[in-house]
Amino acid sequence: MAVNKQWIYARKPVAEVGPENFDLVEGPMPEPKTGEVLVRTTLLSLDPASRAWMQGATYRSQLNPGDLMAGWGLGEVVSSNMKGFEPGDLVSGEYGWQQYAAFSAKALTKHDKKHKPEHILGALGITGLTAYFGMLDVGRPRPGETVLVSGAAGAVGSIAGQIAKISGCRVIGTTRSAEKCKWIVDELGFDAAIDYTGENLDKALKDACPNGLDVYFDNTGGEVLAAALRRMNLFGRVSCCGAISQYNTSKPEPGPFGVPGFLVTKRIRMEGFVVMDFYNRKAQAEAALARWLAEGKLKAPVDVVEGFEKMPSALAGMFAGKNKGKLMVRV
Amino acid sequence: MAVNKQWIYARKPVAEVGPENFDLVEGPMPEPKTGEVLVRTTLLSLDPASRAWMQGATYRSQLNPGDLMAGWGLGEVVSSNMKGFEPGDLVSGEYGWQQYAAFSAKALTKHDKKHKPEHILGALGITGLTAYFGMLDVGRPRPGETVLVSGAAGAVGSIAGQIAKISGCRVIGTTRSAEKCKWIVDELGFDAAIDYTGENLDKALKDACPNGLDVYFDNTGGEVLAAALRRMNLFGRVSCCGAISQYNTSKPEPGPFGVPGFLVTKRIRMEGFVVMDFYNRKAQAEAALARWLAEGKLKAPVDVVEGFEKMPSALAGMFAGKNKGKLMVRV
Repeated sequence: MAVNKQWIYARKPVAEVGPENFDLVEGPMPEPKTGEVLVRTTLLSLDPASRAWMQGATYRSQLNPGDLMAGWGLGEVVSSNMKGFEPGDLVSGEYGWQQYAAFSAKALTKHDKKHKPEHILGALGITGLTAYFGMLDVGRPRPGETVLVSGAAGAVGSIAGQIAKISGCRVIGTTRSAEKCKWIVDELGFDAAIDYTGENLDKALKDACPNGLDVYFDNTGGEVLAAALRRMNLFGRVSCCGAISQYNTSKPEPGPFGVPGFLVTKRIRMEGFVVMDFYNRKAQAEAALARWLAEGKLKAPVDVVEGFEKMPSALAGMFAGKNKGKLMVRV
Repeated sequence: MAVNKQWIYARKPVAEVGPENFDLVEGPMPEPKTGEVLVRTTLLSLDPASRAWMQGATYRSQLNPGDLMAGWGLGEVVSSNMKGFEPGDLVSGEYGWQQYAAFSAKALTKHDKKHKPEHILGALGITGLTAYFGMLDVGRPRPGETVLVSGAAGAVGSIAGQIAKISGCRVIGTTRSAEKCKWIVDELGFDAAIDYTGENLDKALKDACPNGLDVYFDNTGGEVLAAALRRMNLFGRVSCCGAISQYNTSKPEPGPFGVPGFLVTKRIRMEGFVVMDFYNRKAQAEAALARWLAEGKLKAPVDVVEGFEKMPSALAGMFAGKNKGKLMVRV
C-alpha cells in the first residue's frame, strides 16, 4: 500500500480530449500533516467542465500540463489528524484523479452514510445543486410554462428537467440519440425529446413547444442555444449552466445569431451561474433534493465505470455522448 | 391647406437605408372622426429602431413597402372631437412621417407646455425613459462601479451615461470620432471615451476601466459588445437596449464569442428590455428626469434638422454617425 496511482494531465489537447492527454504514474503515499486527513478515493466524478479547465481560467484557474488532473470525488477516511474525522468516515473533496489524497479537513465535507455514495456524488452533490439553483433561481420556471433542457440525458440536465416537471412545467429535452430520447421520456418523465443531430431543430422545437419556450436551461451552447432563442417567448429566460459544445474543440464558435437582437425584441434574460455562488442556501437545496428522491419524484440516474485506469477513456466517452445520467468511476 | 405631405416607406433597403427607400407623396388632409383629434406634427423623432422595423417583427410588426413610414412625434392639436383636447394642445403620438394625423385621443399623450418641445421628445420622452429604465432597472449600477455605454453620443446613450454618473459610477462611453469622444467627456461629463473605430478596443477598454467593467449599456451589439464581455467583472450586467451595428446591413453577424461561455464563468446577466414594459412606473421616471434637468445634473443634447423634406437623409445621417444627442426633424 505504499503506492498512490495518479493520472497526470500531461499534454494539452488540440481538439478532442482522450487518453493520449494523460499519463498514469505511481506517486508516493501522501502523509497527512497536522489538521489533515488521509482519504482513499472510492468514486471520482467526471464532468464536462474538466475540458474547459484545459482551455483557460474558468471559475477556477487553468490546468497546466504536468498538473495532477483535477476533479471531485468521494472517499473514505484512512487516518486522521483532525478531531471530528474518524477512519471509515465518508468524505467528499476536490481530490484530483488519484487513489489517495492527504487533505486539510477544512476542504472536506463529511456525509451521512444513509445516502447512497452515487447519490452523494450525483443528485445530492454538485450535480443536483447545479440543477436546483440553475433551474429554480436562474431559470425561474412558473407552473404551466414550457421549459427546454439541453444535454438532457447528462448529469445535470437529467436532474434539471425533472425539477422543472416538479415545478409544474411542460419539459422538453435535447440529446443526441433516439435511444436517449426514449430514455428521458420513458424513464425520467420528460414530456418530449429531440435528437438534435437528426432533425430540423427549428421544426422539432416548434412541434414540441406549440406555445413557445419560456425557460431554456443551457448545458451546451451552440446550435441548440441558437434555436432556443428563435423559439423563445417574450420575457423568456436562459439559464447558462455550461457550453459543452464549445469545450472539446480547438476553435470555439462565435455566439448565436440574435444576440443581442432577440434579447431586446423579446426581452430575454440570459444569465450565467456557478453553483458555488448559491452555497449559502446549500442546505435548503440538499433537503429538497433528498426529499424528492425519497418520495420517488426525482430519479437519480448514474453511469458508473469500474476501474481507476479507465478515467481518461470515460472522460472521452462523455464527450462522445456515451453516458446516461451522472458519470463516475469506481476507483 | 388641403394637402398632407407623407413619406412612404417604398422600397426595402438591401443594406444601408437612404433616401432611395422613401417616396414623398401628397395625401389628403385626414378627417378626425368621433373621439379623434387632428394633429399637425411639429417635431418628428428619428430612431435607430426604424431600420430594424424594416428587417422583421421586433417589438412592433414589420414595416412593409407601401406603408406610411412609422415614427414618433410631437404635434399641436388643430381640431378635436374629444373632450379634454383643445386646439393648441401639445400632444405626442406615433404619427408616422406625415404633416397631419387624425388620431384616436386614447393613443395621444398630452404634455405640459412648461417643458421644451425638444425635451418632451427627447430626455423627457421615450429616449429618456429608455435610458432611465435600461440603466437603473436592467443594468442596476451601484456607486463606485464602472459602467460602459456604447453609442454614447447618441440619443439614449448620452442620457444613459449621465444617469450612471448621477448614480455615482465611473462612466466610459464609446463613439466613433475623436470629436464626439471629446464632446461626451467635456460636455456630458463622461470620465473617459473610446473611439471604437480607431483604437485597439481591448487595450482602450483596459486603460479606461482599470478595475474592469460592471455594467455595459449596449446600444450597438457587435464588436463593442464582444470586447465588453471580455473585460467584464464577475457578476457583470449587460443591459441590451439595441443593436444598431446589426440594423443597417444585409447580413447580420453571429453573436459575440463568449456567449454563453463568459456568461457562465463570469456569472454575467444579459437582459434585453423595451421601454414600454416599464410604463407602469413612467411617472416616477419622468419626475426624476425633469428634476435632474432642472437641477442641471442632466444635459439633454438635441440635434434638430430643419425641414420635413429631410426626414430620409436625416435617418441615413444617423447611421453614418452624424448626430450628437437626440436627432429630430422640425416639420
